[in-house]
Amino acid sequence: MSDPTGGHGIEVVAFDGDDTLWHSESHFVDAHRRFCELLLPYVDDVARIDEQVVATERANLALYGYGSKAFTLSLIETAITLTEGRITAGEITEILELGKRLLTHPIELLDGVAEVVDELAATGRRLIVVTKGDLFHQEAKVAGSGLADRFDRVEIVSEKDVATYRRVIDACEVEPHQFLMIGNSVRSDVLPVVELGGHAVHLPYTYTWELEHVEGANGADHGYHELRSIRELPALVEKLSAGGA
Amino acid sequence: MSDPTGGHGIEVVAFDGDDTLWHSESHFVDAHRRFCELLLPYVDDVARIDEQVVATERANLALYGYGSKAFTLSLIETAITLTEGRITAGEITEILELGKRLLTHPIELLDGVAEVVDELAATGRRLIVVTKGDLFHQEAKVAGSGLADRFDRVEIVSEKDVATYRRVIDACEVEPHQFLMIGNSVRSDVLPVVELGGHAVHLPYTYTWELEHVEGANGADHGYHELRSIRELPALVEKLSAGGA
Repeated sequence: MSDPTGGHGIEVVAFDGDDTLWHSESHFVDAHRRFCELLLPYVDDVARIDEQVVATERANLALYGYGSKAFTLSLIETAITLTEGRITAGEITEILELGKRLLTHPIELLDGVAEVVDELAATGRRLIVVTKGDLFHQEAKVAGSGLADRFDRVEIVSEKDVATYRRVIDACEVEPHQFLMIGNSVRSDVLPVVELGGHAVHLPYTYTWELEHVEGANGADHGYHELRSIRELPALVEKLSAGGA
Repeated sequence: MSDPTGGHGIEVVAFDGDDTLWHSESHFVDAHRRFCELLLPYVDDVARIDEQVVATERANLALYGYGSKAFTLSLIETAITLTEGRITAGEITEILELGKRLLTHPIELLDGVAEVVDELAATGRRLIVVTKGDLFHQEAKVAGSGLADRFDRVEIVSEKDVATYRRVIDACEVEPHQFLMIGNSVRSDVLPVVELGGHAVHLPYTYTWELEHVEGANGADHGYHELRSIRELPALVEKLSAGGA
């Protein structure tokens, strides 16, 4: 049960969107695979393609931010670089199409998400989404998830750092220890929340984007929880609310 | 002076960002001009280039939303279409560069903005920004404007319609008649606010993007105010707060 006295109970459960509530990175992986197929006539080394894509994304991150449009622009740039300008306009059109498909694929919830969101909503706790990426696309994903009416608020942010979570927790009018964040990225969903004194849960996804990877992080050393399935979340929330660790 | 009794005074003054607080469309116009120069060896008709750019932007709007990355992707698509695939990779790189320049140009405030923002802030009213486009880029623009600390909140939204303004006005905890929005777009900054019973001010900019154009709108018929300079805003706010029309 939520704790209206503002005590140690968890009042707000915050979910990451991409790869926590719904599949996302798997679509990027598919797009990347198709991109490699396009380039293989020019560059007979998938590892080199992978490296150049990550290098271009990293170089453009401060300019483009996150999301499918940023990814598409970085793929076009990578294709021109790696083929030394020999890529054809028809192939660039295929890259544009890959990018458009990322923006239009139907939202598929991850296993257990719908049930867990319902179960937690029934405890009276406030549920929110904290997601980063394209504003336009993330709003479309929330709408397409069928879960929009379960969430008290949806925070679409440009970067998930300590300052962002401080603002989100303040906007919820709770203390950090009344706030729990769950997500697939240790860097973006977990460590900044732990730093603020909130509860954080790492729920790994099949794929981790290179730019979200944190070497050597683990829950025991860094004060966060690790779950293998979102279905374990309601019990953890109850245990933490009852004062367990 | 603001009216703490919640009466007819204007409590919140909301500013559009692009082309109201700072120059934006002029940079897009420059980019478009450069784009036309790139295509003229292939398409000897600027009007046809203009038409195809607008048609592509319009077709992609529901998918890409607003902003420089959407614009860049639409320009690449337009270039491939209009040249029937003859555009070179080098020229597409130039389009990518045009897009990057849109994301990096320094923020130039419009004439009078800094003084008017200071003057209104000194009346004790809350000032906010309501802007649409790339989340990442708009945040960078607010930061680059030097005005961030004057604003009570910055709302970066995906579409400026009646539902959006209802949410923004609710979040400010005021009634629509205590809310005034000023911006350069009749469609996005003015008409939805008027529909909600708020005050709206149209401040035309040198250029209007084709997709923001509203045929035949005028303040007298549609219940909004028209100013020629933002310097006239403080006097209008005082007049409206005193019950003038």
